[in-house]
Amino acid sequence: MSLNAPYDPDNIFAKILRGEMPSVKVWEDDHVLAFMDVFPQSEGHVLVISKTSTAQTLLDIDAAALARLTVAVQRTARAVEKALRPDGFQIMQLNGRAGGQTVFHLHFHVIPRWTNRQMKGHGHAPMADTTVLRALADRIAAALD
Amino acid sequence: MSLNAPYDPDNIFAKILRGEMPSVKVWEDDHVLAFMDVFPQSEGHVLVISKTSTAQTLLDIDAAALARLTVAVQRTARAVEKALRPDGFQIMQLNGRAGGQTVFHLHFHVIPRWTNRQMKGHGHAPMADTTVLRALADRIAAALD
Repeated sequence: MSLNAPYDPDNIFAKILRGEMPSVKVWEDDHVLAFMDVFPQSEGHVLVISKTSTAQTLLDIDAAALARLTVAVQRTARAVEKALRPDGFQIMQLNGRAGGQTVFHLHFHVIPRWTNRQMKGHGHAPMADTTVLRALADRIAAALD
Repeated sequence: MSLNAPYDPDNIFAKILRGEMPSVKVWEDDHVLAFMDVFPQSEGHVLVISKTSTAQTLLDIDAAALARLTVAVQRTARAVEKALRPDGFQIMQLNGRAGGQTVFHLHFHVIPRWTNRQMKGHGHAPMADTTVLRALADRIAAALD
């Protein structure tokens, strides 16, 4: 994949946004959607995407949509921290196959970390049980400011 | 380190901002500074920090400063892409020791990736030669929009 390839409207996040694929939603507004990663690298791994931008990578999103998306990432991270009390967390945003990107709709990962727990590699985590993800999403949503 | 510990004004990025420590600058404005990581995980690894916020983590920066910082990360990534033509790149932002954070002034990593080159682990890269970093910084700065 080139960093400048055209947007594929059939990527899985576009399908989630159109309601053609299920997702375990944490929260949303008119501009953004936060939902549980079904291949969580750690407990409470959330993805945050723009609803309005069809940017594939960080290179091609307009500044206003990027600012909204980043503030949404922060809001999500604050709720994850309050709900799950991790010892730390990582924000990851991957661009291009060589950068580890697997879904070509720009997204930010919020990955909680605990001192005594290993994080799974991106692309190496097993699929999570939806019931477990739903319970985590509810706890995180309840902690939103 | 707690995610809510007080800001240490003697952290290395605070010293860089005060001019008490050298850095290989890529660009700056009144709000942000982009400079080369001296322990690059790949060629062209740049760090972007706020000059005005003393946030340690993503949790404690105000929305306006965060928006400016993120747009600065994007501007930097665009220049890195144009100058070095990586196959992809990663944005990383680490929070708390358990999240891999080693300097407690909020920062974003812009890490170019090439299909045929391994990326070094965070905290496992050797110190780079300043002359090499200066040449890379000059190429990236020349590609800024």
